[in-house]
Amino acid sequence: MVNKNNQVENLLLNRRTIRAFKEQSLTQEQLNLLLEAARQTATSSFLQQSSVIHVTASEKRQQIREICQQDYVGANGDLFIFVVDLYRNQQIRKASGNNDGRLHKTDVFLQAVDDTVLASQNVADLAESWGLGTVFLGSIANDAAAMVKLLKLPALTFPLLGLQVGVPDQQPELKPRLPLKFRSFENEYETDHSLAELKDYDEVVQTYYDLRDSNRRIDSFTHQVNSAKLNHRETKRDDILNVIHQQQLCLY
Amino acid sequence: MVNKNNQVENLLLNRRTIRAFKEQSLTQEQLNLLLEAARQTATSSFLQQSSVIHVTASEKRQQIREICQQDYVGANGDLFIFVVDLYRNQQIRKASGNNDGRLHKTDVFLQAVDDTVLASQNVADLAESWGLGTVFLGSIANDAAAMVKLLKLPALTFPLLGLQVGVPDQQPELKPRLPLKFRSFENEYETDHSLAELKDYDEVVQTYYDLRDSNRRIDSFTHQVNSAKLNHRETKRDDILNVIHQQQLCLY
Repeated sequence: MVNKNNQVENLLLNRRTIRAFKEQSLTQEQLNLLLEAARQTATSSFLQQSSVIHVTASEKRQQIREICQQDYVGANGDLFIFVVDLYRNQQIRKASGNNDGRLHKTDVFLQAVDDTVLASQNVADLAESWGLGTVFLGSIANDAAAMVKLLKLPALTFPLLGLQVGVPDQQPELKPRLPLKFRSFENEYETDHSLAELKDYDEVVQTYYDLRDSNRRIDSFTHQVNSAKLNHRETKRDDILNVIHQQQLCLY
Repeated sequence: MVNKNNQVENLLLNRRTIRAFKEQSLTQEQLNLLLEAARQTATSSFLQQSSVIHVTASEKRQQIREICQQDYVGANGDLFIFVVDLYRNQQIRKASGNNDGRLHKTDVFLQAVDDTVLASQNVADLAESWGLGTVFLGSIANDAAAMVKLLKLPALTFPLLGLQVGVPDQQPELKPRLPLKFRSFENEYETDHSLAELKDYDEVVQTYYDLRDSNRRIDSFTHQVNSAKLNHRETKRDDILNVIHQQQLCLY
Protein backbone atom coordinates (compact mmCIF):
# COMPACT_ATOMS: atom_id res chain seq x y z
CA MET A 1 0.00 0.00 0.00
CA VAL A 2 2.73 2.43 0.99
CA ASN A 3 4.28 4.40 -1.87
CA LYS A 4 7.99 3.76 -1.41
CA ASN A 5 8.79 6.91 -3.37
CA ASN A 6 7.03 9.08 -0.84
CA GLN A 7 9.62 9.90 1.80
CA VAL A 8 7.03 11.09 4.30
CA GLU A 9 4.99 7.88 4.02
CA ASN A 10 8.11 5.84 4.51
CA LEU A 11 9.07 7.81 7.59
CA LEU A 12 5.75 8.11 9.33
CA LEU A 13 4.44 4.61 8.74
CA ASN A 14 7.69 2.98 9.85
CA ARG A 15 8.57 5.28 12.68
CA ARG A 16 10.63 3.90 15.55
CA THR A 17 11.80 5.65 18.68
CA ILE A 18 15.61 5.67 18.92
CA ARG A 19 17.21 5.69 22.35
CA ALA A 20 20.85 4.92 21.51
CA PHE A 21 22.84 7.49 19.56
CA LYS A 22 26.36 7.65 18.20
CA GLU A 23 28.78 10.24 19.51
CA GLN A 24 27.98 12.83 16.87
CA SER A 25 26.16 16.13 17.10
CA LEU A 26 24.06 18.07 14.64
CA THR A 27 25.85 20.38 12.23
CA GLN A 28 25.10 24.08 12.59
CA GLU A 29 23.11 23.91 9.35
CA GLN A 30 21.03 20.99 10.60
CA LEU A 31 20.39 22.79 13.87
CA ASN A 32 19.24 25.91 12.04
CA LEU A 33 16.91 23.93 9.80
CA LEU A 34 15.35 22.15 12.77
CA LEU A 35 14.70 25.45 14.51
CA GLU A 36 13.27 26.80 11.25
CA ALA A 37 10.91 23.83 11.06
CA ALA A 38 9.69 24.65 14.57
CA ARG A 39 9.28 28.28 13.62
CA GLN A 40 7.27 27.53 10.48
CA THR A 41 4.89 25.14 12.26
CA ALA A 42 1.22 26.07 12.35
CA THR A 43 0.38 28.29 15.31
CA SER A 44 -2.97 28.87 16.94
CA SER A 45 -4.37 32.35 16.18
CA PHE A 46 -0.90 33.28 14.88
CA LEU A 47 0.15 33.96 18.48
CA GLN A 48 3.40 31.91 18.17
CA GLN A 49 3.30 30.82 21.79
CA SER A 50 6.07 28.23 21.90
CA SER A 51 9.85 28.32 22.17
CA VAL A 52 12.67 25.80 21.86
CA ILE A 53 15.69 25.56 24.12
CA HIS A 54 18.71 23.70 22.75
CA VAL A 55 20.57 22.33 25.75
CA THR A 56 24.29 22.10 25.09
CA ALA A 57 25.90 22.69 28.49
CA SER A 58 27.10 19.36 29.85
CA GLU A 59 26.10 20.20 33.41
CA LYS A 60 22.54 20.98 32.40
CA ARG A 61 22.35 17.90 30.22
CA GLN A 62 23.41 15.81 33.17
CA GLN A 63 20.84 17.43 35.43
CA ILE A 64 18.14 16.73 32.88
CA ARG A 65 19.33 13.12 32.65
CA GLU A 66 18.90 12.85 36.41
CA ILE A 67 15.39 14.30 36.22
CA CYS A 68 14.42 11.98 33.38
CA GLN A 69 16.11 8.98 35.01
CA GLN A 70 17.06 7.65 31.59
CA ASP A 71 20.73 7.02 30.78
CA TYR A 72 20.43 8.15 27.19
CA VAL A 73 19.02 11.59 28.01
CA GLY A 74 21.68 14.25 27.49
CA ALA A 75 24.22 11.60 26.52
CA ASN A 76 25.02 11.38 22.78
CA GLY A 77 22.98 13.50 20.39
CA ASP A 78 21.31 16.90 20.67
CA LEU A 79 18.79 17.76 23.34
CA PHE A 80 15.84 20.12 22.87
CA ILE A 81 13.22 21.26 25.36
CA PHE A 82 9.95 22.55 23.91
CA VAL A 83 8.49 25.30 26.03
CA VAL A 84 4.94 26.64 26.24
CA ASP A 85 5.63 30.35 26.01
CA LEU A 86 3.09 33.01 26.91
CA TYR A 87 5.77 35.17 28.52
CA ARG A 88 6.79 36.80 25.26
CA ASN A 89 3.27 37.95 24.51
CA GLN A 90 2.85 39.15 28.08
CA GLN A 91 5.92 41.37 27.62
CA ILE A 92 4.60 42.67 24.31
CA ARG A 93 1.30 43.56 25.99
CA LYS A 94 3.08 45.14 28.95
CA ALA A 95 5.19 47.30 26.61
CA SER A 96 1.94 48.68 25.21
CA GLY A 97 0.48 49.28 28.66
CA ASN A 98 -1.96 46.35 28.49
CA ASN A 99 -2.75 43.89 31.24
CA ASP A 100 -2.28 40.13 30.85
CA GLY A 101 -5.77 39.70 29.40
CA ARG A 102 -6.51 36.04 28.79
CA LEU A 103 -2.95 34.78 29.26
CA HIS A 104 -3.67 33.00 32.53
CA LYS A 105 -6.63 31.07 31.17
CA THR A 106 -6.72 27.36 30.41
CA ASP A 107 -7.95 28.14 26.91
CA VAL A 108 -4.82 30.08 26.00
CA PHE A 109 -2.57 27.59 27.79
CA LEU A 110 -3.97 24.77 25.65
CA GLN A 111 -3.53 26.84 22.49
CA ALA A 112 0.11 27.25 23.42
CA VAL A 113 0.43 23.55 24.27
CA ASP A 114 -0.86 22.75 20.79
CA ASP A 115 1.69 25.12 19.24
CA THR A 116 4.47 23.57 21.26
CA VAL A 117 3.71 19.91 20.54
CA LEU A 118 3.08 20.51 16.84
CA ALA A 119 6.50 22.15 16.57
CA SER A 120 8.20 19.26 18.35
CA GLN A 121 6.73 16.72 15.93
CA ASN A 122 7.91 18.69 12.91
CA VAL A 123 11.41 18.95 14.34
CA ALA A 124 11.42 15.18 14.89
CA ASP A 125 10.09 14.51 11.38
CA LEU A 126 12.69 16.72 9.74
CA ALA A 127 15.52 15.12 11.73
CA GLU A 128 14.25 11.67 10.80
CA SER A 129 14.14 12.67 7.13
CA TRP A 130 17.93 12.97 7.34
CA GLY A 131 18.23 9.46 8.72
CA LEU A 132 18.59 10.67 12.28
CA GLY A 133 16.70 9.10 15.17
CA THR A 134 14.57 10.80 17.80
CA VAL A 135 13.05 10.14 21.19
CA PHE A 136 10.43 12.33 22.83
CA LEU A 137 11.11 12.93 26.51
CA GLY A 138 7.88 13.12 28.48
CA SER A 139 10.10 12.25 31.41
CA ILE A 140 11.05 15.90 31.90
CA ALA A 141 7.74 16.01 33.78
CA ASN A 142 9.34 13.81 36.45
CA ASP A 143 10.31 17.08 38.12
CA ALA A 144 8.78 20.05 36.33
CA ALA A 145 9.87 22.47 39.07
CA ALA A 146 13.50 21.45 38.62
CA MET A 147 13.19 21.90 34.86
CA VAL A 148 11.78 25.39 35.35
CA LYS A 149 14.71 26.31 37.56
CA LEU A 150 17.32 24.71 35.33
CA LEU A 151 16.16 26.50 32.20
CA LYS A 152 15.44 29.75 34.07
CA LEU A 153 11.89 29.73 32.81
CA PRO A 154 9.93 32.84 33.82
CA ALA A 155 6.26 32.89 34.78
CA LEU A 156 3.96 32.15 31.84
CA THR A 157 6.33 29.56 30.40
CA PHE A 158 6.32 25.80 30.98
CA PRO A 159 8.69 22.98 29.88
CA LEU A 160 6.32 20.63 28.12
CA LEU A 161 8.28 18.05 26.17
CA GLY A 162 11.88 17.09 25.47
CA LEU A 163 13.27 15.70 22.25
CA GLN A 164 16.62 14.07 21.74
CA VAL A 165 17.99 13.79 18.23
CA GLY A 166 21.02 11.94 16.93
CA VAL A 167 22.63 9.36 14.72
CA PRO A 168 20.95 6.04 15.54
CA ASP A 169 23.07 3.40 17.20
CA GLN A 170 20.31 0.78 17.22
CA GLN A 171 17.71 -0.62 14.84
CA PRO A 172 14.62 -1.42 16.85
CA GLU A 173 11.68 -3.28 15.39
CA LEU A 174 8.43 -1.47 14.69
CA LYS A 175 6.47 -1.46 17.94
CA PRO A 176 3.02 -2.92 17.34
CA ARG A 177 0.18 -0.45 18.00
CA LEU A 178 -3.43 -0.99 18.91
CA PRO A 179 -5.51 -2.02 15.89
CA LEU A 180 -6.98 0.98 14.09
CA LYS A 181 -10.50 0.05 15.11
CA PHE A 182 -9.62 1.00 18.68
CA ARG A 183 -8.01 4.31 17.72
CA SER A 184 -10.30 5.76 15.05
CA PHE A 185 -14.01 6.20 14.57
CA GLU A 186 -16.46 7.68 12.12
CA ASN A 187 -18.72 10.52 13.24
CA GLU A 188 -18.87 9.63 16.90
CA TYR A 189 -16.96 7.85 19.60
CA GLU A 190 -17.77 4.18 20.09
CA THR A 191 -17.72 3.08 23.68
CA ASP A 192 -18.12 -0.63 23.03
CA HIS A 193 -14.48 -1.35 22.49
CA SER A 194 -14.94 -5.15 22.55
CA LEU A 195 -12.03 -5.55 24.89
CA ALA A 196 -12.00 -9.28 24.29
CA GLU A 197 -10.50 -8.49 20.90
CA LEU A 198 -7.51 -6.98 22.64
CA LYS A 199 -6.34 -10.50 23.40
CA ASP A 200 -4.82 -10.90 19.96
CA TYR A 201 -3.09 -7.55 20.25
CA ASP A 202 -1.77 -8.46 23.67
CA GLU A 203 -0.19 -11.56 22.14
CA VAL A 204 1.43 -9.49 19.40
CA VAL A 205 2.89 -7.10 21.96
CA GLN A 206 3.97 -9.93 24.23
CA THR A 207 5.96 -11.59 21.50
CA TYR A 208 7.47 -8.34 20.40
CA TYR A 209 10.97 -8.07 21.77
CA ASP A 210 12.21 -4.62 22.49
CA LEU A 211 15.63 -4.54 20.85
CA ARG A 212 16.62 -1.50 22.85
CA ASP A 213 17.03 -3.69 25.91
CA SER A 214 18.90 -6.69 24.51
CA ASN A 215 15.77 -8.66 23.73
CA ARG A 216 14.17 -8.28 27.12
CA ARG A 217 10.55 -9.41 26.95
CA ILE A 218 8.08 -6.61 27.60
CA ASP A 219 4.58 -6.72 29.00
CA SER A 220 1.39 -7.10 27.08
CA PHE A 221 -0.48 -3.86 26.41
CA THR A 222 -3.34 -4.49 28.79
CA HIS A 223 -0.89 -5.50 31.51
CA GLN A 224 0.94 -2.20 31.08
CA VAL A 225 -2.33 -0.29 31.35
CA ASN A 226 -3.10 -2.23 34.50
CA SER A 227 0.26 -1.67 36.14
CA ALA A 228 2.60 0.97 37.54
CA LYS A 229 2.25 3.40 34.64
CA LEU A 230 -1.32 4.22 35.65
CA ASN A 231 -1.59 2.89 39.20
CA HIS A 232 -1.66 5.30 42.10
CA ARG A 233 1.87 5.80 43.39
CA GLU A 234 4.08 8.33 45.09
CA THR A 235 5.62 10.47 42.37
CA LYS A 236 6.83 14.02 41.91
CA ARG A 237 4.96 13.98 38.61
CA ASP A 238 1.86 14.73 40.67
CA ASP A 239 3.31 18.21 41.29
CA ILE A 240 2.79 19.14 37.68
CA LEU A 241 -0.48 21.03 38.19
CA ASN A 242 1.08 23.00 41.05
CA VAL A 243 4.04 23.92 38.88
CA ILE A 244 1.75 24.98 36.04
CA HIS A 245 -0.12 27.18 38.51
CA GLN A 246 3.11 28.52 39.98
CA GLN A 247 4.00 29.57 36.46
CA GLN A 248 0.68 31.45 36.50
CA LEU A 249 -0.71 29.30 33.75
CA CYS A 250 -4.04 27.55 33.44
CA LEU A 251 -5.38 29.35 36.51
CA TYR A 252 -9.04 29.38 35.46
CA MET B 1 20.22 26.11 2.36
CA VAL B 2 17.22 23.87 1.90
CA ASN B 3 17.91 20.61 0.09
CA LYS B 4 15.28 20.59 -2.63
CA ASN B 5 15.57 16.83 -2.92
CA ASN B 6 14.42 16.39 0.65
CA GLN B 7 10.63 16.29 0.52
CA VAL B 8 10.27 16.85 4.25
CA GLU B 9 12.46 19.95 4.22
CA ASN B 10 10.48 21.34 1.33
CA LEU B 11 7.22 20.72 3.10
CA LEU B 12 8.04 21.88 6.59
CA LEU B 13 10.04 24.98 5.74
CA ASN B 14 7.45 26.22 3.27
CA ARG B 15 4.32 25.23 5.10
CA ARG B 16 1.16 27.26 4.54
CA THR B 17 -2.24 26.80 6.11
CA ILE B 18 -4.89 26.12 3.46
CA ARG B 19 -8.45 27.24 4.15
CA ALA B 20 -10.06 26.82 0.71
CA PHE B 21 -10.46 23.33 -0.68
CA LYS B 22 -11.80 21.88 -3.92
CA GLU B 23 -14.86 19.67 -3.88
CA GLN B 24 -12.93 16.42 -3.59
CA SER B 25 -12.57 13.99 -0.73
CA LEU B 26 -9.80 11.64 0.32
CA THR B 27 -9.68 8.22 -1.29
CA GLN B 28 -10.21 5.28 1.03
CA GLU B 29 -6.52 4.43 0.68
CA GLN B 30 -5.47 7.95 1.63
CA LEU B 31 -7.81 7.91 4.59
CA ASN B 32 -6.36 4.61 5.79
CA LEU B 33 -2.80 5.87 5.45
CA LEU B 34 -3.59 9.03 7.41
CA LEU B 35 -5.11 6.99 10.22
CA GLU B 36 -2.07 4.70 10.10
CA ALA B 37 0.21 7.72 10.47
CA ALA B 38 -1.72 8.75 13.57
CA ARG B 39 -1.50 5.22 14.91
CA GLN B 40 2.27 4.95 14.39
CA THR B 41 3.01 8.30 16.04
CA ALA B 42 5.15 8.27 19.18
CA THR B 43 3.08 7.74 22.31
CA SER B 44 3.95 8.61 25.89
CA SER B 45 4.72 5.51 28.00
CA PHE B 46 3.22 3.41 25.16
CA LEU B 47 -0.24 4.14 26.60
CA GLN B 48 -1.72 5.14 23.19
CA GLN B 49 -4.07 7.69 24.73
CA SER B 50 -5.44 9.44 21.66
CA SER B 51 -8.12 8.72 19.08
CA VAL B 52 -9.23 10.23 15.78
CA ILE B 53 -12.80 10.80 14.69
CA HIS B 54 -13.40 11.24 10.95
CA VAL B 55 -16.52 13.35 10.63
CA THR B 56 -18.42 12.51 7.45
CA ALA B 57 -22.08 13.12 8.34
CA SER B 58 -23.17 16.39 6.78
CA GLU B 59 -25.30 17.38 9.75
CA LYS B 60 -22.39 16.98 12.15
CA ARG B 61 -20.04 18.80 9.80
CA GLN B 62 -22.46 21.69 9.71
CA GLN B 63 -22.77 21.75 13.48
CA ILE B 64 -19.00 21.83 13.79
CA ARG B 65 -18.87 24.67 11.26
CA GLU B 66 -21.27 26.61 13.46
CA ILE B 67 -19.13 25.95 16.53
CA CYS B 68 -15.96 26.98 14.73
CA GLN B 69 -17.64 29.98 13.09
CA GLN B 70 -15.50 29.50 10.01
CA ASP B 71 -17.17 28.95 6.64
CA TYR B 72 -14.60 26.47 5.41
CA VAL B 73 -14.97 24.08 8.35
CA GLY B 74 -16.87 20.99 7.27
CA ALA B 75 -17.27 22.40 3.77
CA ASN B 76 -15.02 20.83 1.11
CA GLY B 77 -12.37 18.35 2.23
CA ASP B 78 -12.17 15.81 5.04
CA LEU B 79 -12.66 16.72 8.66
CA PHE B 80 -10.87 15.03 11.58
CA ILE B 81 -11.21 15.62 15.30
CA PHE B 82 -8.27 14.54 17.47
CA VAL B 83 -9.43 13.31 20.84
CA VAL B 84 -7.54 12.95 24.11
CA ASP B 85 -8.57 9.42 25.07
CA LEU B 86 -8.11 7.99 28.54
CA TYR B 87 -11.47 6.23 28.37
CA ARG B 88 -10.09 3.20 26.59
CA ASN B 89 -7.47 2.57 29.25
CA GLN B 90 -10.06 3.13 31.97
CA GLN B 91 -12.17 0.36 30.43
CA ILE B 92 -9.17 -1.94 30.20
CA ARG B 93 -8.42 -1.33 33.86
CA LYS B 94 -12.05 -1.81 34.83
CA ALA B 95 -12.17 -5.14 32.97
CA SER B 96 -9.31 -6.31 35.19
CA GLY B 97 -11.00 -5.05 38.34
CA ASN B 98 -8.68 -2.07 38.78
CA ASN B 99 -9.67 1.45 39.79
CA ASP B 100 -8.93 4.49 37.62
CA GLY B 101 -5.50 4.96 39.19
CA ARG B 102 -3.83 8.09 37.85
CA LEU B 103 -6.24 8.67 34.96
CA HIS B 104 -7.81 11.77 36.47
CA LYS B 105 -4.50 13.50 37.08
CA THR B 106 -3.12 16.47 35.15
CA ASP B 107 0.08 14.54 34.51
CA VAL B 108 -1.69 11.80 32.58
CA PHE B 109 -3.96 14.30 30.83
CA LEU B 110 -0.91 16.15 29.51
CA GLN B 111 0.68 12.90 28.39
CA ALA B 112 -2.45 12.19 26.39
CA VAL B 113 -2.53 15.74 25.04
CA ASP B 114 1.02 15.22 23.77
CA ASP B 115 -0.01 11.95 22.10
CA THR B 116 -2.98 13.62 20.49
CA VAL B 117 -1.22 16.69 19.10
CA LEU B 118 1.78 14.71 17.85
CA ALA B 119 -0.58 12.45 15.90
CA SER B 120 -2.42 15.41 14.38
CA GLN B 121 0.83 16.91 13.08
CA ASN B 122 1.87 13.65 11.45
CA VAL B 123 -1.52 13.32 9.76
CA ALA B 124 -1.15 16.86 8.43
CA ASP B 125 2.40 16.23 7.26
CA LEU B 126 1.46 13.05 5.43
CA ALA B 127 -1.51 14.73 3.74
CA GLU B 128 0.71 17.63 2.70
CA SER B 129 3.25 15.21 1.25
CA TRP B 130 0.55 14.26 -1.29
CA GLY B 131 0.06 17.89 -2.28
CA LEU B 132 -3.02 18.28 -0.11
CA GLY B 133 -3.59 21.26 2.13
CA THR B 134 -4.46 21.34 5.82
CA VAL B 135 -5.81 23.67 8.46
CA PHE B 136 -5.73 22.96 12.18
CA LEU B 137 -8.97 23.88 13.91
CA GLY B 138 -8.34 25.20 17.38
CA SER B 139 -11.75 26.78 16.94
CA ILE B 140 -13.48 23.58 18.09
CA ALA B 141 -12.70 24.97 21.56
CA ASN B 142 -15.26 27.72 20.88
CA ASP B 143 -17.77 25.35 22.44
CA ALA B 144 -16.08 22.28 23.87
CA ALA B 145 -19.26 21.10 25.57
CA ALA B 146 -21.11 21.07 22.25
CA MET B 147 -18.27 19.12 20.66
CA VAL B 148 -18.41 16.54 23.46
CA LYS B 149 -22.13 16.07 22.89
CA LEU B 150 -21.88 16.02 19.12
CA LEU B 151 -19.19 13.34 19.04
CA LYS B 152 -20.75 11.42 21.97
CA LEU B 153 -17.51 11.62 23.88
CA PRO B 154 -17.58 9.71 27.16
CA ALA B 155 -15.89 10.82 30.38
CA LEU B 156 -12.10 10.66 30.17
CA THR B 157 -12.08 11.86 26.58
CA PHE B 158 -11.73 15.42 25.28
CA PRO B 159 -11.90 16.95 21.77
CA LEU B 160 -8.59 18.77 21.55
CA LEU B 161 -7.93 19.79 17.98
CA GLY B 162 -9.58 19.60 14.56
CA LEU B 163 -7.85 19.17 11.23
CA GLN B 164 -9.34 19.72 7.83
CA VAL B 165 -7.60 18.17 4.83
CA GLY B 166 -8.27 18.63 1.14
CA VAL B 167 -7.16 19.64 -2.32
CA PRO B 168 -5.99 23.27 -2.07
CA ASP B 169 -8.05 25.89 -3.86
CA GLN B 170 -5.74 28.76 -2.97
CA GLN B 171 -2.03 29.49 -2.94
CA PRO B 172 -1.31 31.69 0.05
CA GLU B 173 2.06 33.28 0.62
CA LEU B 174 4.32 32.06 3.39
CA LYS B 175 3.23 33.84 6.57
CA PRO B 176 6.21 35.56 8.15
CA ARG B 177 7.08 34.25 11.62
CA LEU B 178 8.89 35.84 14.52
CA PRO B 179 12.65 35.86 13.98
CA LEU B 180 14.33 32.76 15.37
CA LYS B 181 16.08 34.74 18.09
CA PHE B 182 12.69 35.25 19.74
CA ARG B 183 11.68 31.61 19.47
CA SER B 184 14.82 29.64 20.34
CA PHE B 185 17.50 29.81 22.98
CA GLU B 186 20.60 27.97 24.10
CA ASN B 187 20.69 26.40 27.56
CA GLU B 188 18.29 28.78 29.24
CA TYR B 189 15.42 31.10 28.53
CA GLU B 190 16.35 34.71 27.79
CA THR B 191 13.91 37.20 29.22
CA ASP B 192 15.41 40.29 27.59
CA HIS B 193 13.57 39.93 24.33
CA SER B 194 14.61 43.40 23.06
CA LEU B 195 11.08 44.16 22.03
CA ALA B 196 12.26 47.19 20.09
CA GLU B 197 13.58 44.74 17.51
CA LEU B 198 10.05 43.55 16.91
CA LYS B 199 9.43 46.72 14.96
CA ASP B 200 11.05 45.30 11.84
CA TYR B 201 9.02 42.13 12.17
CA ASP B 202 5.84 44.13 12.62
CA GLU B 203 6.56 45.87 9.34
CA VAL B 204 7.08 42.55 7.58
CA VAL B 205 3.77 41.24 8.92
CA GLN B 206 1.97 44.47 8.14
CA THR B 207 2.97 44.34 4.51
CA TYR B 208 2.10 40.68 4.24
CA TYR B 209 -1.28 40.32 2.59
CA ASP B 210 -3.31 37.34 3.59
CA LEU B 211 -4.38 35.85 0.27
CA ARG B 212 -7.10 33.83 1.93
CA ASP B 213 -9.16 36.99 2.32
CA SER B 214 -8.80 38.65 -1.08
CA ASN B 215 -5.77 40.69 -0.11
CA ARG B 216 -7.23 42.15 3.04
CA ARG B 217 -4.49 43.83 5.03
CA ILE B 218 -3.90 42.18 8.40
CA ASP B 219 -2.56 43.58 11.61
CA SER B 220 1.02 43.73 12.74
CA PHE B 221 2.07 40.98 15.13
CA THR B 222 2.33 43.12 18.23
CA HIS B 223 -1.03 44.67 17.46
CA GLN B 224 -2.60 41.22 17.31
CA VAL B 225 -1.04 40.32 20.65
CA ASN B 226 -2.45 43.52 22.07
CA SER B 227 -5.95 43.06 20.73
CA ALA B 228 -9.05 40.86 20.89
CA LYS B 229 -7.19 37.55 20.64
CA LEU B 230 -5.76 37.99 24.11
CA ASN B 231 -7.92 40.72 25.65
CA HIS B 232 -10.47 39.84 28.28
CA ARG B 233 -13.82 39.25 26.61
CA GLU B 234 -17.02 37.30 26.97
CA THR B 235 -16.47 33.93 25.33
CA LYS B 236 -17.64 30.37 25.69
CA ARG B 237 -14.00 29.38 25.29
CA ASP B 238 -13.65 30.23 28.97
CA ASP B 239 -15.75 27.14 29.72
CA ILE B 240 -12.96 24.87 28.59
CA LEU B 241 -11.58 24.09 32.04
CA ASN B 242 -15.10 23.26 33.26
CA VAL B 243 -15.63 20.92 30.35
CA ILE B 244 -12.28 19.23 30.96
CA HIS B 245 -13.30 18.75 34.58
CA GLN B 246 -16.76 17.52 33.59
CA GLN B 247 -14.98 14.91 31.49
CA GLN B 248 -13.22 13.94 34.75
CA LEU B 249 -9.87 14.96 33.38
CA CYS B 250 -7.11 17.05 34.91
CA LEU B 251 -8.84 17.04 38.29
CA TYR B 252 -5.71 17.32 40.41
